[in-house]
Amino acid sequence: MGKAYFLTLLDLTMKLVCSQSDLSTNLSIVSRAVPSRPTHPVLANVLLQADAQTNSVSLTAFDLSLGIRTSFSAEVIQSGAIALPAKLLVDITSRLPEGEITLEDESASVAETPGGEGIIVTLTPKSGRYQLRAMGAEEYPELPVIENIEAIHLTAAALIEGLRGCLFATSSDETKQVLTGVHLTLKQDALEFAATDGHRLAVVETLNESAVASAENQLEVTVPNRAMRELERMLAHSSSEEETVALYFDQGQIVFQWPNQRLTSRILEGQYPAYRLLIPRQFERTLTLERRQLVSTLERIAVLADQKNNIVKISIDSDAGEITLSVESQDVGSGRESMPAQQISGENIDIAFNIKYLMEGLKALPSPEIQMQLNGNLTPVIFTPLSGLKMTYLAMPVQLRS
Amino acid sequence: MGKAYFLTLLDLTMKLVCSQSDLSTNLSIVSRAVPSRPTHPVLANVLLQADAQTNSVSLTAFDLSLGIRTSFSAEVIQSGAIALPAKLLVDITSRLPEGEITLEDESASVAETPGGEGIIVTLTPKSGRYQLRAMGAEEYPELPVIENIEAIHLTAAALIEGLRGCLFATSSDETKQVLTGVHLTLKQDALEFAATDGHRLAVVETLNESAVASAENQLEVTVPNRAMRELERMLAHSSSEEETVALYFDQGQIVFQWPNQRLTSRILEGQYPAYRLLIPRQFERTLTLERRQLVSTLERIAVLADQKNNIVKISIDSDAGEITLSVESQDVGSGRESMPAQQISGENIDIAFNIKYLMEGLKALPSPEIQMQLNGNLTPVIFTPLSGLKMTYLAMPVQLRS
Repeated sequence: MGKAYFLTLLDLTMKLVCSQSDLSTNLSIVSRAVPSRPTHPVLANVLLQADAQTNSVSLTAFDLSLGIRTSFSAEVIQSGAIALPAKLLVDITSRLPEGEITLEDESASVAETPGGEGIIVTLTPKSGRYQLRAMGAEEYPELPVIENIEAIHLTAAALIEGLRGCLFATSSDETKQVLTGVHLTLKQDALEFAATDGHRLAVVETLNESAVASAENQLEVTVPNRAMRELERMLAHSSSEEETVALYFDQGQIVFQWPNQRLTSRILEGQYPAYRLLIPRQFERTLTLERRQLVSTLERIAVLADQKNNIVKISIDSDAGEITLSVESQDVGSGRESMPAQQISGENIDIAFNIKYLMEGLKALPSPEIQMQLNGNLTPVIFTPLSGLKMTYLAMPVQLRS
Repeated sequence: MGKAYFLTLLDLTMKLVCSQSDLSTNLSIVSRAVPSRPTHPVLANVLLQADAQTNSVSLTAFDLSLGIRTSFSAEVIQSGAIALPAKLLVDITSRLPEGEITLEDESASVAETPGGEGIIVTLTPKSGRYQLRAMGAEEYPELPVIENIEAIHLTAAALIEGLRGCLFATSSDETKQVLTGVHLTLKQDALEFAATDGHRLAVVETLNESAVASAENQLEVTVPNRAMRELERMLAHSSSEEETVALYFDQGQIVFQWPNQRLTSRILEGQYPAYRLLIPRQFERTLTLERRQLVSTLERIAVLADQKNNIVKISIDSDAGEITLSVESQDVGSGRESMPAQQISGENIDIAFNIKYLMEGLKALPSPEIQMQLNGNLTPVIFTPLSGLKMTYLAMPVQLRS
């Protein structure tokens, strides 16, 4: 743990002056990677590194899977590095009034007072004075680096779109391994995002011709959904969606990097399902629906769906030019609503879905109108936006009790 | 259960048309009195009573302690009463689009279909149709009434002020009986609100000369905090703070009534503590503080307070014209902040408080500046607003570890 260790040994009196808003904002970003139940005490900390030469401070949090590093400008009087208790520091800093804060390692002076063992950092805002027990930077785990790999470049907007379109479809069951991740496939002219939990599948393709052209082969990687949620959040709070993000990955790690911020994550091991084979190429029936109307109808209907099965029946009626959604719950009651459908082709059919899976996919589809494509009532059904993003949502129907 | 029973037997086909917003708004008000774990199935319902003569609908919920009744205008085609499943009805109604809803008792027609036993109510919005299993109105418990008692009249604003100033100080420990309530004392020219959990005491006096003059004797009653929280919420959402609220009470019940709304609650039995005796009449030390500054300083300091004891030490320094707040937590760190104090009289002193009790009282005090009055560091300390509402907050100091 070369550099940090080196600095800590030499400089026991790290000292810097920064603004409350810079410190608080950056702490709130990195603290997302601090585990709520750390397996080792040092993981409850944030690593602070101050560099007097560049007058910059970097903060790092790393739970051994997800790592986040940010940096910002500060007046660094004495370089140094130290591990600070994350939650306490966030809680105090966010409550301080705007203005300058002095942060100083006082271990040298405190060590001589009775009971004054260990490292003490002093935080001095305009009024008041806070002292926190800290840990040595050398105890903090090193953030993984990826070396000698060419970066792929994407806009923040493309990454956000891709993640929003599929994150919801990942499995939250940790025993499902690769299914808890977002699968990224780098193609010649696009980056494809996919997620499935076995019940449904979401695939988004973000075109990015100029930037990806440098990659010569198709590369695939599966990244834990937690890291991808944090990436989406960080990018969404970034100043600009036009920001270019550099992406590096090898067999063990993936790194996303853009000015002043960096996110690293381990990669999930195991073969991701060959999901492209699940998407039918031809359909016996198609229709077009107004997405918001379908979502709000489903929300009402869902109230009366059987708590256990949570099933809605959709009846397509081409003569009436409408679909009817109905639910029934033996002990509670029943509900039924119809809504118009356009461009219905194929024979009438009744088909049933788990409402949750249907609703989550419909909410993620980005366009006002969507196309529904299907064959029978027990084969995969495809929902696609009629405009905008290239996205495919596949939902498996469930068997109707007759 | 006279009237409801009578109507249900005669009219099996109650029918009404009302607006979605009226139904949804009024359901959300009364449903606060529906218990989350009903001791009897009928208590999970809302009683709906429709009157064709007055074209009005009333909704009632009653958990056998707290009862809420509201009424609104509707086109009542056929009078009737029925008990409807509260949660389902709230969930569906709130999701329906604005517009007219027809609500109809269809028990007569459904009873002839196979498996169609029990009462079925149909809800028909502009599009769609919902059927809910309901229960007979005769099964719903009667809301208590208080008869032959003269009303006391107060403005909604006075009630809200009184409740906000003391509700937080009630005990949340159900075994503490009367301490879980707000104690109301009706005096010749005022209504006094008091609450204490044994650690602190809040007393608010709302002057209301004109309205209370009709009551000739001092009356006292203790009302469960849950009912008082709902009353505060209902009044705060009322159209006008100038609304006059009629208050009736006897030994068992209290009723608050204003146009279209009524809240009833059982009264807590037992002798309320003689809290006025706890408030010192003379003080050796007084000082004036800026309330918001004190609250925000305490919020920062609290982060570093020992999780277990949660104690802050306040040192009053009349020479420096300031107070210093300090906390210490053995394993974590320490914090200290000073802030100015005005008009300090008496000798310097160190005094300690539980931060939670201090903070809750300070947040409830209504004025920008407050006065702190005390004798020693183990006797009751009084905080009062320098302007506005007549409120007294008493906090017991805790012993300082030396």
